[in-house]
Amino acid sequence: MTFLERLDSIQRSKQSLLCVGLDTDASLLPPHLSVEKNPVLAFNKAIIGATKDIACAYKVNLAFYETAGSVGWEVLEQTRALIPSHCIAIADGKRADIGNSSARYARALYKELEFDAATVAPYMGSDSLAPFFDFEDKCTFVLVLTSNKGSADFQRLESGGKPLYTHVAEACLRWNTKGNIGIVAGATHPQELSDLRALLPEMPFLIPGVGAQGGDLRETLARGTSAHGLRAVINASRSILYASNQRDFAEAARKEALKLHAQMSAFLTARGTM
Amino acid sequence: MTFLERLDSIQRSKQSLLCVGLDTDASLLPPHLSVEKNPVLAFNKAIIGATKDIACAYKVNLAFYETAGSVGWEVLEQTRALIPSHCIAIADGKRADIGNSSARYARALYKELEFDAATVAPYMGSDSLAPFFDFEDKCTFVLVLTSNKGSADFQRLESGGKPLYTHVAEACLRWNTKGNIGIVAGATHPQELSDLRALLPEMPFLIPGVGAQGGDLRETLARGTSAHGLRAVINASRSILYASNQRDFAEAARKEALKLHAQMSAFLTARGTM
Repeated sequence: MTFLERLDSIQRSKQSLLCVGLDTDASLLPPHLSVEKNPVLAFNKAIIGATKDIACAYKVNLAFYETAGSVGWEVLEQTRALIPSHCIAIADGKRADIGNSSARYARALYKELEFDAATVAPYMGSDSLAPFFDFEDKCTFVLVLTSNKGSADFQRLESGGKPLYTHVAEACLRWNTKGNIGIVAGATHPQELSDLRALLPEMPFLIPGVGAQGGDLRETLARGTSAHGLRAVINASRSILYASNQRDFAEAARKEALKLHAQMSAFLTARGTM
Repeated sequence: MTFLERLDSIQRSKQSLLCVGLDTDASLLPPHLSVEKNPVLAFNKAIIGATKDIACAYKVNLAFYETAGSVGWEVLEQTRALIPSHCIAIADGKRADIGNSSARYARALYKELEFDAATVAPYMGSDSLAPFFDFEDKCTFVLVLTSNKGSADFQRLESGGKPLYTHVAEACLRWNTKGNIGIVAGATHPQELSDLRALLPEMPFLIPGVGAQGGDLRETLARGTSAHGLRAVINASRSILYASNQRDFAEAARKEALKLHAQMSAFLTARGTM
């Protein structure tokens, strides 16, 4: 089964486009977890347990693990192992370097940690991303138009009548000979999300920016999905993880996730996507 | 002492602009090191020991450590601890993400691992780099024109009469209110190296691409240094690390490093930089 077949199948069966972002901040955990041997891991385990039936994917933000050094990388490895096979496991590290270095990053995430997908940064061009694309059964999401304010600094520079992010999106289309490329496009840019979907009708979109960053879910569903209402992987992190910092944190997280899931499920039903 | 004062002082006293890149590939180590408990660390220790009097800096390529997961991160931590204080320690990870994630990457490299400098990728814009710039006494090298072929894909796209990499370089100039920003510019682009030096006369340049990638050292010295012949940190990795894969690997590495150092020292003498 290819990555896309698997993604479609999971999204249909769960009626969900929800990706839960495990940007787990050790300083924001419920106080009662401090007695745990490994509080971050205990937290992630509870969050995954409370949401795995309604999440199509989990996105692990490497920065939040790397910040604790080798100990943090161990928690990353343990967290990866907790993500069930009926969910897509995404490593969000925005890596890329010259070819021989990028090959190491790709191996770390795809082979050693067995992630299904990863995010990469396009600035260094095709040969810096090729080692990721070489993993045929994985999906590599290239940053195109990010959700933050700084996306305006360079991504919107016009060249030859179109912005840099469109050049990157068109390159993704050209590079996608194995059908294993996706893009990252922020929910905070609704019009551009529509334009990108028109340009890349079948490509998977990893869409951050709903929730704490202010992107609107209804707009994102309408503009970011494929014709079948699928192929959008819509991430929410902080709004789910920190819904409560008390003993009920996992139930509170589920409640938040369910709100998003209900909207997604209603959208898919209206589209007739079963 | 600021980063720049320290860099200048080290470069003057050693008469060296040489940065040794610790892109240590576990599969290319001399066979006799396989009996060591930690072959990569033993290798790095020997390389550092053989070159520390003639290297102004060491650049640790994170990809080569991350590829071994948490164990690799431990070797990274141990390698960092081996770099003496009379050398600049650079973490080459090309990180960047939205602000709250970038803050974690910056903390990992600057606070936990106590690197003096790090490389970052500019695609996501100013707010993705600000958490690195917030560390006033460190130096953050922003990718401007990289040494690989793929640098032509996006970095050379023209916008408003100048290429994207010039936009990034100009942004670095604007952002440099604390005097703690540098750029990465590849030795494989000699003319552009001159142009960038003209635009940024005082900024430190981290210059990869000499050696295995084909950049010419003489050109790089003439074009990439400041008016005083300093502020260029010229990296060589593979040509030094793998000069021999026998028992004499450390002496062979020193011999290669000395060749580069001799050219640098002659250049600085000719410039009158003491």
